[in-house]
Amino acid sequence: MGEFDLIRQFFQRPVRRAALGVGDDCALLAPAPGMQLAVSSDMLVDGRHFFADVDPAALGHKALAVNLSDLAACGARPLAFTLALALPRADPAWLQAFAGGLLALADAHGCELVGGDTTAGPLNICITVFGEVPPGRALLRSGAQVGDEVWVSGTLGDARLALEALRGRARLPAAALAAARQRLERPTPRVALGQALQGVATSAIDVSDGLLGDLGHILAASRVGARLDVSAAIELIAICAVGSSAGGHFDLEIDLETRRQCALAGGDDYELAFTAPAGQAAEVLAAARQAGTPVTRIGRIEAEPGLRLVDGAGQALPVRPYASFDHFA
Amino acid sequence: MGEFDLIRQFFQRPVRRAALGVGDDCALLAPAPGMQLAVSSDMLVDGRHFFADVDPAALGHKALAVNLSDLAACGARPLAFTLALALPRADPAWLQAFAGGLLALADAHGCELVGGDTTAGPLNICITVFGEVPPGRALLRSGAQVGDEVWVSGTLGDARLALEALRGRARLPAAALAAARQRLERPTPRVALGQALQGVATSAIDVSDGLLGDLGHILAASRVGARLDVSAAIELIAICAVGSSAGGHFDLEIDLETRRQCALAGGDDYELAFTAPAGQAAEVLAAARQAGTPVTRIGRIEAEPGLRLVDGAGQALPVRPYASFDHFA
Repeated sequence: MGEFDLIRQFFQRPVRRAALGVGDDCALLAPAPGMQLAVSSDMLVDGRHFFADVDPAALGHKALAVNLSDLAACGARPLAFTLALALPRADPAWLQAFAGGLLALADAHGCELVGGDTTAGPLNICITVFGEVPPGRALLRSGAQVGDEVWVSGTLGDARLALEALRGRARLPAAALAAARQRLERPTPRVALGQALQGVATSAIDVSDGLLGDLGHILAASRVGARLDVSAAIELIAICAVGSSAGGHFDLEIDLETRRQCALAGGDDYELAFTAPAGQAAEVLAAARQAGTPVTRIGRIEAEPGLRLVDGAGQALPVRPYASFDHFA
Repeated sequence: MGEFDLIRQFFQRPVRRAALGVGDDCALLAPAPGMQLAVSSDMLVDGRHFFADVDPAALGHKALAVNLSDLAACGARPLAFTLALALPRADPAWLQAFAGGLLALADAHGCELVGGDTTAGPLNICITVFGEVPPGRALLRSGAQVGDEVWVSGTLGDARLALEALRGRARLPAAALAAARQRLERPTPRVALGQALQGVATSAIDVSDGLLGDLGHILAASRVGARLDVSAAIELIAICAVGSSAGGHFDLEIDLETRRQCALAGGDDYELAFTAPAGQAAEVLAAARQAGTPVTRIGRIEAEPGLRLVDGAGQALPVRPYASFDHFA
């Protein structure tokens, strides 16, 4: 199968919103007048972001999901994306499944594949995604204010727990592993929530490297600090997908420290962490209802730089054990 | 050196035209009202698009040049780009040189680095570039008309000759190899020519895989054929950089067949091949003068599908030996 046949068979589809799609030197986008274009790129590498034997449909889903999650974190509406793909070989069955997972998620978000590149090489997937957002309405990392409350969407830690189980460092019942693995391999980008939080949240980020590390980017960009209540909130939303799948919350034998590790430092959750003024909790909850995504209040922004964790007894917890992932550290 | 330090040190710079640059979940572009956004992605892989020991400054240049060349082929004005980079290790000296080559070319075209991704992995460089073009003015592959003349910018074949020499399949004097290698490793995207050809050319493509193959994309998209005069035009512009560097045209011992192979099938030239109405030759030449890029008329668009080559005696030449590169063929 040649390069151009491969593109035609699996990736070339008519576009409706773009002015020109796959098949020329460039794609042409026609942004709505006055809108800003939000742009993000993510590169997924074999052995680092996924296992080589991962279900290709799940990989296609995840490759786009992590990019849509960046749009969500900015409150942008998805428009289009490009796909650059290095493949060890052109395997039609693999490509069919990969394209299926990728394009199903794209269709669910009205996000059109408009162009890209294919080449032979070690498996590498690079997607660049485009969304639109009204000027001044994008959610940035730099907008958190002292006194704001800190929120997080959905649940945290399931993806990390799946990774630990797949690496043989944790044991899970089959149903629980399946649920956790779903969260790891088919994350749900919080696109509707991000848009609903326009004008409500003061800052936002998606949790890809771990809550503490990612929240740290908001604190640094906003020049503030935060206090998180680990027991009251974070322990309750940790590893919920897994707990639920086993027939109820937390009846798995997952100890407190593992829950904290996974919730605070586990990456790949693709939930949104965001801040909003303390007086706007009702608006936050209304946005969450509108988006169909639960949110939980986990702490407060403070003037003193850095992160402080407290447990249920109000005792300070050390932050260092929960430091997050760095590709080159 | 950590991932975020690496980005800050080498790739984070203030933006002037974009609304938001490197450092948040998304970059924000503010396209001029009414303009369309041209988008292109290219992925460069170690061992396939470059040798592992290539000068990193040249690699940085080339990675952006091949993307700017796609904008040129559409007649778009460069605005911004994202860079996704998989690196075996974070080597500051390598990164310094790579970023230097990349950003020097970016600055020369007013094209801002607005975002991207870095990860550990086999060396892979994926750039997505954005340009703007007035609606209806983009040069497409599909606009060639019967009777149009076929043109090509600059010279052809130098890059391929360098590749042959570096692989030990051709011998070149040192000065000639240096000139050819410059064309291979530091191609010049024909950005000004592409813009000058708006409203003049009826179709365009950049020559990345070889003239015949790339021109074939224009013919297929436009549902036409073409006749190229190999002797009168193509042989004269083949391997000119190398010939000139050695003190004059064609005094190297490069036989006719090698010249034809390199000109017709050699990739990596990043010249523009384009068509224009026969009555508009003066406008084409004026656009070329304005852009400071020589152009040569090499053939004519015909109704009969397919490509036909003729030599100086008017004899038909076979096309097959000059078929172009396919990553998976």
